[in-house]
Amino acid sequence: MTPKRGSADPLRLRIRHARPHVRPGAPPGTLTPPSPDEPVQPTQIRVIWYDQDHVEECQLTDVAGCSTFAGRLGTTWIDVTGVGDPTVLRELGKMYGLHPLALEDVQNLRERPKIETYEGQKFVVFRLARLDSTVMMEQISAFLVGQTLITFQEDPVDPWEPVRSSIRSGIGRVRSAGADYLLYSLIDLALDEVFPLLEQLGDRVDDLEQAVVDKPGPETLNGIFALKRELLILRKTVWPEREVILGLQQDQSGLIAQDTRLYLRDAYDHAVQLMDMLEMYRDLASNLLDAYLSSLSNRLNDIMKTLTIISTIFVPLTFVVGLYGMNFKYFPEIGWRFGYLFVWVIIVAIVAVLLRYFRTRHWF
Amino acid sequence: MTPKRGSADPLRLRIRHARPHVRPGAPPGTLTPPSPDEPVQPTQIRVIWYDQDHVEECQLTDVAGCSTFAGRLGTTWIDVTGVGDPTVLRELGKMYGLHPLALEDVQNLRERPKIETYEGQKFVVFRLARLDSTVMMEQISAFLVGQTLITFQEDPVDPWEPVRSSIRSGIGRVRSAGADYLLYSLIDLALDEVFPLLEQLGDRVDDLEQAVVDKPGPETLNGIFALKRELLILRKTVWPEREVILGLQQDQSGLIAQDTRLYLRDAYDHAVQLMDMLEMYRDLASNLLDAYLSSLSNRLNDIMKTLTIISTIFVPLTFVVGLYGMNFKYFPEIGWRFGYLFVWVIIVAIVAVLLRYFRTRHWF
Amino acid sequence: MTPKRGSADPLRLRIRHARPHVRPGAPPGTLTPPSPDEPVQPTQIRVIWYDQDHVEECQLTDVAGCSTFAGRLGTTWIDVTGVGDPTVLRELGKMYGLHPLALEDVQNLRERPKIETYEGQKFVVFRLARLDSTVMMEQISAFLVGQTLITFQEDPVDPWEPVRSSIRSGIGRVRSAGADYLLYSLIDLALDEVFPLLEQLGDRVDDLEQAVVDKPGPETLNGIFALKRELLILRKTVWPEREVILGLQQDQSGLIAQDTRLYLRDAYDHAVQLMDMLEMYRDLASNLLDAYLSSLSNRLNDIMKTLTIISTIFVPLTFVVGLYGMNFKYFPEIGWRFGYLFVWVIIVAIVAVLLRYFRTRHWF
Amino acid sequence: MTPKRGSADPLRLRIRHARPHVRPGAPPGTLTPPSPDEPVQPTQIRVIWYDQDHVEECQLTDVAGCSTFAGRLGTTWIDVTGVGDPTVLRELGKMYGLHPLALEDVQNLRERPKIETYEGQKFVVFRLARLDSTVMMEQISAFLVGQTLITFQEDPVDPWEPVRSSIRSGIGRVRSAGADYLLYSLIDLALDEVFPLLEQLGDRVDDLEQAVVDKPGPETLNGIFALKRELLILRKTVWPEREVILGLQQDQSGLIAQDTRLYLRDAYDHAVQLMDMLEMYRDLASNLLDAYLSSLSNRLNDIMKTLTIISTIFVPLTFVVGLYGMNFKYFPEIGWRFGYLFVWVIIVAIVAVLLRYFRTRHWF
Amino acid sequence: MTPKRGSADPLRLRIRHARPHVRPGAPPGTLTPPSPDEPVQPTQIRVIWYDQDHVEECQLTDVAGCSTFAGRLGTTWIDVTGVGDPTVLRELGKMYGLHPLALEDVQNLRERPKIETYEGQKFVVFRLARLDSTVMMEQISAFLVGQTLITFQEDPVDPWEPVRSSIRSGIGRVRSAGADYLLYSLIDLALDEVFPLLEQLGDRVDDLEQAVVDKPGPETLNGIFALKRELLILRKTVWPEREVILGLQQDQSGLIAQDTRLYLRDAYDHAVQLMDMLEMYRDLASNLLDAYLSSLSNRLNDIMKTLTIISTIFVPLTFVVGLYGMNFKYFPEIGWRFGYLFVWVIIVAIVAVLLRYFRTRHWF
Repeated sequence: MTPKRGSADPLRLRIRHARPHVRPGAPPGTLTPPSPDEPVQPTQIRVIWYDQDHVEECQLTDVAGCSTFAGRLGTTWIDVTGVGDPTVLRELGKMYGLHPLALEDVQNLRERPKIETYEGQKFVVFRLARLDSTVMMEQISAFLVGQTLITFQEDPVDPWEPVRSSIRSGIGRVRSAGADYLLYSLIDLALDEVFPLLEQLGDRVDDLEQAVVDKPGPETLNGIFALKRELLILRKTVWPEREVILGLQQDQSGLIAQDTRLYLRDAYDHAVQLMDMLEMYRDLASNLLDAYLSSLSNRLNDIMKTLTIISTIFVPLTFVVGLYGMNFKYFPEIGWRFGYLFVWVIIVAIVAVLLRYFRTRHWF
Repeated sequence: MTPKRGSADPLRLRIRHARPHVRPGAPPGTLTPPSPDEPVQPTQIRVIWYDQDHVEECQLTDVAGCSTFAGRLGTTWIDVTGVGDPTVLRELGKMYGLHPLALEDVQNLRERPKIETYEGQKFVVFRLARLDSTVMMEQISAFLVGQTLITFQEDPVDPWEPVRSSIRSGIGRVRSAGADYLLYSLIDLALDEVFPLLEQLGDRVDDLEQAVVDKPGPETLNGIFALKRELLILRKTVWPEREVILGLQQDQSGLIAQDTRLYLRDAYDHAVQLMDMLEMYRDLASNLLDAYLSSLSNRLNDIMKTLTIISTIFVPLTFVVGLYGMNFKYFPEIGWRFGYLFVWVIIVAIVAVLLRYFRTRHWF
Repeated sequence: MTPKRGSADPLRLRIRHARPHVRPGAPPGTLTPPSPDEPVQPTQIRVIWYDQDHVEECQLTDVAGCSTFAGRLGTTWIDVTGVGDPTVLRELGKMYGLHPLALEDVQNLRERPKIETYEGQKFVVFRLARLDSTVMMEQISAFLVGQTLITFQEDPVDPWEPVRSSIRSGIGRVRSAGADYLLYSLIDLALDEVFPLLEQLGDRVDDLEQAVVDKPGPETLNGIFALKRELLILRKTVWPEREVILGLQQDQSGLIAQDTRLYLRDAYDHAVQLMDMLEMYRDLASNLLDAYLSSLSNRLNDIMKTLTIISTIFVPLTFVVGLYGMNFKYFPEIGWRFGYLFVWVIIVAIVAVLLRYFRTRHWF
Repeated sequence: MTPKRGSADPLRLRIRHARPHVRPGAPPGTLTPPSPDEPVQPTQIRVIWYDQDHVEECQLTDVAGCSTFAGRLGTTWIDVTGVGDPTVLRELGKMYGLHPLALEDVQNLRERPKIETYEGQKFVVFRLARLDSTVMMEQISAFLVGQTLITFQEDPVDPWEPVRSSIRSGIGRVRSAGADYLLYSLIDLALDEVFPLLEQLGDRVDDLEQAVVDKPGPETLNGIFALKRELLILRKTVWPEREVILGLQQDQSGLIAQDTRLYLRDAYDHAVQLMDMLEMYRDLASNLLDAYLSSLSNRLNDIMKTLTIISTIFVPLTFVVGLYGMNFKYFPEIGWRFGYLFVWVIIVAIVAVLLRYFRTRHWF
Repeated sequence: MTPKRGSADPLRLRIRHARPHVRPGAPPGTLTPPSPDEPVQPTQIRVIWYDQDHVEECQLTDVAGCSTFAGRLGTTWIDVTGVGDPTVLRELGKMYGLHPLALEDVQNLRERPKIETYEGQKFVVFRLARLDSTVMMEQISAFLVGQTLITFQEDPVDPWEPVRSSIRSGIGRVRSAGADYLLYSLIDLALDEVFPLLEQLGDRVDDLEQAVVDKPGPETLNGIFALKRELLILRKTVWPEREVILGLQQDQSGLIAQDTRLYLRDAYDHAVQLMDMLEMYRDLASNLLDAYLSSLSNRLNDIMKTLTIISTIFVPLTFVVGLYGMNFKYFPEIGWRFGYLFVWVIIVAIVAVLLRYFRTRHWF
């Protein structure tokens, strides 16, 4: 009857953070050198360059190779995996004039989704939900510098394959549009990845609703609280993402083309829809908790009623039979001819009166 | 005494969604081809053309037939039922220059009510409550392109008959006004359909209020939670609809005539009134739940009081009679002449003291 | 001990609505003809005309009689009682150019307080609390057309006597000011009528506060919930009224004189004060409910403590005396010289140990 | 064990209101004549006139005496105590051109703190906390007309002594600044008087926090609810005061000097700080209530556990010994040589099994 | 089983306040003289002057020594420890033209974080978390006057060592930027100090989450409430700090260089992130409390079920055996050959029926 604790929770959200955020007193804009205890993830750089008619791809291990793309017409996408090595960041920063404060944020894997505008560049941080064994909310940092997009992530698994393949095949608008549309594609993909998560959560809401009605138990309760906790964390991630998209859409710097803004509006609608669904699930989860606790109160009332009825009937009867179990020498009823019958009459009378009383009180 | 579960719930809201929303990684603006497993609803097209003096109606099965209305003066309403076939959408899109992102939203049956402005066209998504065996919140998508209104819905049942018949008969302003007024008429009808729903919900609030006072039971509780759940879902639909109407009213593009805006303001007032009533029902439902749980606590207190009074009286008495049921050989009281009377004196004394105590505590 | 249900509730708010609001599909702006089942309230028209020096009053039964006042200088107030007859509305509408959408709202007795501006006219809906046997929230619709004020109400009882008599006697500003000031006077009167209601509610809060401390019972609970319910309904009426007054005050059309705005600001302050008091009562009512439930929990704890102390003492004792009531042939203690005394020693020891234990736990 | 009711509550807030607010139907701007039942407080007028170098003070009983100050250069402060006599108000109103609506508000002692701008004058209502035996929230009304400040209060006790003495002694800026700075000084004093109140409330929060941990009882609960109630009332007073100060600070009329605005900003900061502390105390009070109720639940669980353990052990034992107390003629165990020992074995076995069971469930 | 009270709470927030805030009636802008009872902390002044190439440091005990830095080019930072001596404040105020209202706020150690702009100077109040044995939220007041920064704190422990050492060594931007950047560095350091605090709180959330699942007890409850209380206090400090940074960033006075604003935006992001985390912890803490109380309800239900099952089985049995313990002379069953067996049959039947009943109700 004891609650089964630690019941397997298949969808546990985790926000990845490898390095501590806080070095109070260090001057802002300083990059953290790799700590000796924790070996740094080797950095990988994938560069893809394209215009309407051509696509070129290459995989590098140092920043120097990027310089061949620096002056070219067309769109260049530099995708860096592994942000632990400050040399890579510093060299890229020098080559493309990235702001030191932004580079510091790239290394800090706990940043809140945000958008920053620096002279001639946009810096965007957002999160990508990835279904591994557990759900990872991977931090993506992106710089939009002219027609070059530079993205950073810590995790070696590549999430951008769908976008890359649509660049290669030339399906959709991506090849004809610029780096701003590419940035939009990545953000849109990140948002789209949240929908299956939400569907799982929706299924869990339905299951829990069923469980509260059918067989509420401690696991139901644990399930409700786990659900609420995950909705909370997911909400904290999606909410600022909305502002990021809005910030891109209302851009004044000319880095975002007019056309791309229409698409960003669409992405914004998706983010709003995500928030709406999260809010609804949250309200439903609160509802569920109330329903569970109310049914618990109902059951307690039921149980106590049963106990009270049984006790109230039998405790007086036990007194009566105890009475005639006394051993007094001078005990008139004991010697009566119909004493035993008399006791039974008393018993039946007590039971009848009590049952009547219970019925009046609508106890059963 | 056990709660009756799964009690028939006559008004269960359902948001229709036939096709999954999410294909992460597909380029935005792509229409979904019909899946082979799930046969597509055949598309039906009803066209109605009218000006102040004439009305023409026809029913088509392919888009080509619409071209005869394309250049004409007067108002054209193309009403498409069944959005599963991407060819129909694509051809209509080409003929009227509908935006691909909007067409994608037409197919996605889980869109949030919204309004979008594209070059020379308005795209509106709203929901229509329809009382079938259950309540369906059918998604309606509408394009307003000049004097042409194109509406899409998935369900084959036609909800627009009242509007169509007032076009035919020429009652009201609809014939003399343009496509913008027609769009307003559809939205107003959709809002009006929510009022009977709300009246049903209001009746349920009243019934539950009565039940909480008269005979609160687990069904009452289930009823309250079902009510809260439906108010939640209805609210999530009506709330963005308000913004849609406001967006139409504040239109800058010239697609909405000045006169129609007065009517839209009226529709907006209705939407606000709906929200007000929903909010009030929600507050009343929370009130109900509190009332129910409080009465439960009251009852539990009552039950426990009864149990405690009975136990507190009879448990000591049972001890006393048990005492004189002991079989000791050397047991002075047993041999007393008035031992039995003495026991009764003790019993009466105990009962008197306890009753006095209970009365002091206001227990009955 | 059972809760007394249906305890007399002297202040039950009712929002009057005679006719159903919803005729989905009817073109907007249509007036409802009188239904044959429900005989229409006969329409009464009181006209009062005044300027600084003269007052003229007459009582009419048809609209035609109003035409004599149509062109005159000075202020005309046409007060229509009974809105069920569409002919009256239609004729008045024609004579003064009232907007059809507004006329439709006059008939719909469930409108939310609101203000609408049409070409050269203001249309205002507000509610008037009237203390009959029950409290009625009567709907008042008013058109301000130049120096003419037309008001509508359904109920035959005349609420405007104080205003009429101050017009007749010329006390205050009303005779020297125009129709806008007259409209203000009516709204101000409607607001003032809410204050006695609020005072009653305030008295009930005080009574309930006393009851929660002195003798909380199910009637207290019912009283709290009834209070919350009425505060909710009253709030839903007063809240939009505030916006109505603000709308009149910020009028751009020139229908409201500069001087009258000062008075409207005063009325606005009153409305804000009403809202403040309603909010405070609401918070106090929530406080009361919490206090009631907490005292219930306190009492339950008290009751359970009593039961537990009694049971914990006597149940072991009953076991002991039951033990020596066994009938074994070979039962050493039974034959002991001081067996009975020995039992009493055991009993006293048990009681002493348990009392000590309870005292350690601070149970009494 | 019963809750002590009506425990002395040293800090009970009272909002003073001597006369009823509501005379529905009276024309706005009418002053209430003194009612014959309730003798009017005699009016006292203190006038103080000063400039940088001179101070003149006098105490009057009628308005006529004020006329000597009317045209003078320098600042005049007319402080009226007792607002029941309409003649005084009317005469002052005539002499200084005070608006009739404002004068009506002076008499109404339940006004919400507010600021009104009339042609060439500011009218301000605020509240002053005064620690008498109970705390009074005295209403102060003030008119700022050019360099004259006219203040009204009902209570005969003079709260402005600190300001008056700093005028006399010439300490601080007050002598060199104008009537606007004087008004600021009064408001600032009124705010400063709230801080000691808040400190008392803070001490009560701390005491209650201690009590919830150490010996929670019904008085703790009463204390928490009294605290919440007073925070609520205090908040309703301070909140609009903030807006009053902001209104003075953003004055457009030229009545408030630029320099004085700096000081008003400081007063505004104090009001914000008051609100912050009130909010924090409110949150802490809610926290306290939750803590109290949770500890109550904990105790109930504890109590029920004790009861259950005792009952679960002894009820079966009582059955066993009752069994062998039966009087059957043919009862094999009764005759056994080691029957009694056998019963003890059963008893020990039952106790051992149950203790084990309780330990498994972590019941002790 | 009793709750352990006063369990060591390692992170108890304290807001330092040495002197009472309130001297109602004192003219604003007055400095408090040292009280004779409470000896004033001796004032220490550290001056550091630097430009791109030079650094000069000295430690003074009176203000006069500062005058040597007054006219110099480059940045001067005057750091005053101990604000109790009004002479020091007054002299510094005269030397740098600091506003008297601001100086009064320096002495008042309970100020809310805020920013004030006076003619040619910025006055900023913020708080610095310092981990001593307990956590101190030390108040820092700072004046930015041209290229001079004057900071005040009460506590003798120097928190600014990291900034000072980066000035000395010339690491980062601080030497090349002005006094505005220095102010930013201090605020940024103050924010950074909150992160380790938050991490401790985060660990406590995790521990409590574990405890609620594993072995919920009164300490868990105390832990949850202590957590909520500290989040509340921390939030009240960080929230206005956000506004302070925003105020500096939106400065119009020219005191804050364009470059420094970028850095302030970064600090603002950190403050927002702090608020986000605080909000999330707060939601998680509420979740925890709900979880705890729900598990308590679950356990109570469990306990009551056990009690009810045991009582419901044995109470009737005790009655039965009590019945046959009666001593009536004429008692047929007593003499039966298989009477004893008959009783056992009854007992087994009762137990069987009851177990069946419990199973039907899903009680075990």
